[in-house]
Amino acid sequence: MTEPTPIKRIAVLTSGGDAPGMNAAIRAVVRTATYHGIEVVGVRRGFQGLHQGDLRLLGPRDVANIIQRGGTMLLTARSHTWRSAEGRAEGARHLREWHVDALVVIGGDGSFHGAHFLQKEHGIRVVGLPGTIDNDLYGTDHTIGYFTAVETALDAVDKLRDTAASHERIFVIEVMGRHAGHIALDVAVAGGAEEVFLPEDEKSVDDLMDVIRESQAKGKASSVIIVAEGYPGGGQGIANAITQHTGIDTRLTVLGHIQRGGSPVSSDRVLASRLGQGAVEALMAGKSNIMIGRTGGGLTYVPFEETWEKRKDVSRALYKCAKILSI
Amino acid sequence: MTEPTPIKRIAVLTSGGDAPGMNAAIRAVVRTATYHGIEVVGVRRGFQGLHQGDLRLLGPRDVANIIQRGGTMLLTARSHTWRSAEGRAEGARHLREWHVDALVVIGGDGSFHGAHFLQKEHGIRVVGLPGTIDNDLYGTDHTIGYFTAVETALDAVDKLRDTAASHERIFVIEVMGRHAGHIALDVAVAGGAEEVFLPEDEKSVDDLMDVIRESQAKGKASSVIIVAEGYPGGGQGIANAITQHTGIDTRLTVLGHIQRGGSPVSSDRVLASRLGQGAVEALMAGKSNIMIGRTGGGLTYVPFEETWEKRKDVSRALYKCAKILSI
Amino acid sequence: MTEPTPIKRIAVLTSGGDAPGMNAAIRAVVRTATYHGIEVVGVRRGFQGLHQGDLRLLGPRDVANIIQRGGTMLLTARSHTWRSAEGRAEGARHLREWHVDALVVIGGDGSFHGAHFLQKEHGIRVVGLPGTIDNDLYGTDHTIGYFTAVETALDAVDKLRDTAASHERIFVIEVMGRHAGHIALDVAVAGGAEEVFLPEDEKSVDDLMDVIRESQAKGKASSVIIVAEGYPGGGQGIANAITQHTGIDTRLTVLGHIQRGGSPVSSDRVLASRLGQGAVEALMAGKSNIMIGRTGGGLTYVPFEETWEKRKDVSRALYKCAKILSI
Amino acid sequence: MTEPTPIKRIAVLTSGGDAPGMNAAIRAVVRTATYHGIEVVGVRRGFQGLHQGDLRLLGPRDVANIIQRGGTMLLTARSHTWRSAEGRAEGARHLREWHVDALVVIGGDGSFHGAHFLQKEHGIRVVGLPGTIDNDLYGTDHTIGYFTAVETALDAVDKLRDTAASHERIFVIEVMGRHAGHIALDVAVAGGAEEVFLPEDEKSVDDLMDVIRESQAKGKASSVIIVAEGYPGGGQGIANAITQHTGIDTRLTVLGHIQRGGSPVSSDRVLASRLGQGAVEALMAGKSNIMIGRTGGGLTYVPFEETWEKRKDVSRALYKCAKILSI
Repeated sequence: MTEPTPIKRIAVLTSGGDAPGMNAAIRAVVRTATYHGIEVVGVRRGFQGLHQGDLRLLGPRDVANIIQRGGTMLLTARSHTWRSAEGRAEGARHLREWHVDALVVIGGDGSFHGAHFLQKEHGIRVVGLPGTIDNDLYGTDHTIGYFTAVETALDAVDKLRDTAASHERIFVIEVMGRHAGHIALDVAVAGGAEEVFLPEDEKSVDDLMDVIRESQAKGKASSVIIVAEGYPGGGQGIANAITQHTGIDTRLTVLGHIQRGGSPVSSDRVLASRLGQGAVEALMAGKSNIMIGRTGGGLTYVPFEETWEKRKDVSRALYKCAKILSI
Repeated sequence: MTEPTPIKRIAVLTSGGDAPGMNAAIRAVVRTATYHGIEVVGVRRGFQGLHQGDLRLLGPRDVANIIQRGGTMLLTARSHTWRSAEGRAEGARHLREWHVDALVVIGGDGSFHGAHFLQKEHGIRVVGLPGTIDNDLYGTDHTIGYFTAVETALDAVDKLRDTAASHERIFVIEVMGRHAGHIALDVAVAGGAEEVFLPEDEKSVDDLMDVIRESQAKGKASSVIIVAEGYPGGGQGIANAITQHTGIDTRLTVLGHIQRGGSPVSSDRVLASRLGQGAVEALMAGKSNIMIGRTGGGLTYVPFEETWEKRKDVSRALYKCAKILSI
Repeated sequence: MTEPTPIKRIAVLTSGGDAPGMNAAIRAVVRTATYHGIEVVGVRRGFQGLHQGDLRLLGPRDVANIIQRGGTMLLTARSHTWRSAEGRAEGARHLREWHVDALVVIGGDGSFHGAHFLQKEHGIRVVGLPGTIDNDLYGTDHTIGYFTAVETALDAVDKLRDTAASHERIFVIEVMGRHAGHIALDVAVAGGAEEVFLPEDEKSVDDLMDVIRESQAKGKASSVIIVAEGYPGGGQGIANAITQHTGIDTRLTVLGHIQRGGSPVSSDRVLASRLGQGAVEALMAGKSNIMIGRTGGGLTYVPFEETWEKRKDVSRALYKCAKILSI
Repeated sequence: MTEPTPIKRIAVLTSGGDAPGMNAAIRAVVRTATYHGIEVVGVRRGFQGLHQGDLRLLGPRDVANIIQRGGTMLLTARSHTWRSAEGRAEGARHLREWHVDALVVIGGDGSFHGAHFLQKEHGIRVVGLPGTIDNDLYGTDHTIGYFTAVETALDAVDKLRDTAASHERIFVIEVMGRHAGHIALDVAVAGGAEEVFLPEDEKSVDDLMDVIRESQAKGKASSVIIVAEGYPGGGQGIANAITQHTGIDTRLTVLGHIQRGGSPVSSDRVLASRLGQGAVEALMAGKSNIMIGRTGGGLTYVPFEETWEKRKDVSRALYKCAKILSI
């Protein structure tokens, strides 16, 4: 077995939608690299900035006092130029000019695709960190940003319940999750919701009406219903269906982008710190074309392909729990 | 000068939209009354509950541990029956049956109207406490719930700014305020917004475009724009206008009902406590048909008529400040 | 294999120090039992209340709107009478009078001891839920209350860092953890602390001085140092040692009991909900004398003996991570 | 009346203990000055930095995205050199070298003293902004940082009440306020405390014992007692006295420095914005040797001498309210 080529300089970028904890991950990459005698170059605005050559050196003091900040100090963007081989060649050229040996990409599976092509076409070693609030990445229990998004959504649900209870009304709350119901399910259990609608389990209108009727039969004067953004029809669809079939007036709240922001909660900061460290050490060990994840407390190394081929299901046990506790 | 008839029992209700601090106000009414040897009856669901006779005695321990809770323990509702003289007569009958000498109404000017009729038609002494997040009541610097609503909206703005800055985008954020821009203005100044739209000052599309162009000329990559719900067209109107005239993609967030809920901030709890005490002591002093307010640290006694005839303007000095600081 | 004797009525109590999420656990026990047709009796003030016979029936509506509340609605206490066999016999008598078939105890390993004796001496089926902010229970990844305590401590650290940075000072912050450094370690990593002192790893004064000197050599003007309550000498000891050996003035903050309170964060509510459901279903399956835990997403059934015989170590990988990232 | 000499460049510094909202004040000074065509120089580390010549130009983009941050971006320090005439002469020399026409000092009355000497000895125009969490400055209703400190302390009280209620204990909580009880009083009212001890009103041990006995006679199982740092003996003294005279075990929490940090609440940001604008415009109008304050919504101009000669009393009406509502 041959030793992997030593790495002297790595680049790091954030890509796709921003997520709380991305700054903590950048910090961990920079500091772990420094600890091991490796230099770090930060790329601004994701692959778009890589294409445009927007790079600069980052030292351990440049990432001081950012672990608690939302957003990403490296900025992020969706890149159209990256979709073309020419665009990627231009990005690879910038990395070579800066003597970069490997790239760490913090983002979702779309961003891993971009990294994958860089490896395939230009032989640049790449690893990915799961940075997305949706938690919809296979191979890791949680993604960076997920815990904070759940907490933000839950805080809103707690507030709305005050009003729901005072007015004895039904509130329908749409939370983020275009393809997956992870946020919705956690928020529903933690928020004590009467019902939750996940993209993973479409229900008939009859089922919905049963829920409303049961809830009222139990003497519940107010109800909180959580709907994942990706459920067919979304929150608006559920609110309309209730009003149409029962005549009951509902209030709809679409939480939207507030779920992306804010100072990351401890779980996201700790996860980002561990994964950031893991990314640098994986590159040092010669690994490439993988996502660093965490399952059951330990780090995992997931081939990029699996992140877009396999799907992480919501916890069926928790889904059942949500049902039981809304009795 | 004759002594006012001594009061032995008062009733208290919350009416209209719930506001954080209503529980603190109820607590203050109950405890101040108890302190002065007066009994208190709580009416559930506002005037609707008064019409239906949903009353019960409240002692000082019944209001323990509620000062920090959002919503209203007495529930609230909009009453249709109260609009008829028969409905009000029925309510007055319940008050007499319960030997109630006077009524404290916590709500907005619509609720004060309801109280006013009770006084006029049935001779029941009534005082009002300003309980509404909108701060749109004449005769008091602030209303109960306003401070918390501003804080909740500001927290959302801080979170959205993280994403706005990371993506270099324009965010349009609609905050509550159907007839008044108080929340919008405070949130704009405190949130460092680039522009604010108030019902009190309609602007032309050209003005809006100037703002966007200036902001970009100054090198601001991201912008946060605050719009009061009551501005013509609302947040959606502003977002559309920007996209239509500049082609720039914007993100709209309508904060909605979350602004009503949550544990009240200290300023709301202190205000509610002072006003609740003031309401009971005003009744003891023979006052009626007035709202208890606070201006410049002292209590005010505002005839109900003034609360619906006069309008409290937003602070023009602060509006100017918002303009200067967005440079 | 014989079927376990069906359970018709269970009792639930909270014991030892209160922890955020205990209410969520009580709610989950009551509602899961109700779902399966089992009645629930709540015992107030832990084993002391059981000894005194302070029991009452709890239905699903009695636990409505408590999932978001800190503390425990059943109250808790340390019981001296329970240490005697007579005291426990009295408690067992009350359970029999109330026709209780099994008991759920929410607390730490001391409380599980109390439950264990009840099983041993009186044949009452007992299961435990890990309810303690310290996370120092073997057999479960996390305990109910831990996530919230970390978040509360982290929030304080973030605030203190503002002042530390503005004044370029060293802040020593003592967090809870009498026998274990779990809170301290998570807070140190998430708070970006320069150093952390755990009961699991005693250091020499020389090591401490090296840390301070290195930190200053790196150009760090301010430092945040986290100390677990159970580290020899506590926060005061560390602060004194720094001042004595370097002459540098430090500020000490002992966070104390605030770490116990507050609305539980989502992770604690979800954990408590799952474990509460698991406790009832474990009793239904005939299990007894065990703690219900969760490791790697799945439920575990840990014999009570193991909870006081085995020790859960802090994550050595995370401890290493803390060291690397403080570079 | 002659026109005041036009100002072309002003300096700004923060001095004394840091307070949340200082960054918002700096931002307002910089942007208002820029708006009026005046340049701004930021001085780091207060008077110490002025003495050492640590100055740099600040433009409107340099203060972007800081309004929400705790602490002070200009750092702060206590200066010994400033106490000597030579030290101040050195500072004045730096200001002249940088062509500074006037200085804005953000701090407490001690800092205003430092500014006062600069004016007296070197003829440099100076204005002050009240920046201290204690709210103990005459001539302004509130000081920058006060609202946030109250909110932080209140949040801690709410958390401690959860534990106090669950364990049926007495909690003594010491809040900041070395010479004044403003924080303690607001926190006591907003936190529903059973008793409050202010430096402004020393009580006998007998009074204290009466409070405890009354509280227990009323059936209150738990109590929260607020003590201002500056009350003789502090929180520890009160806790000891209770235990000594009643035998009841109490829990003491000293909140300490966490009250200084954190993102400023909206009221502090708005106040800081208005006052920062007011400071620049006061200098433009030829004013000097004054503090800019706000009373009843309008700006005030308070001669520096008054800020150290006169004392702002706590609200006696609110103190009475605290007494009544703890019934």
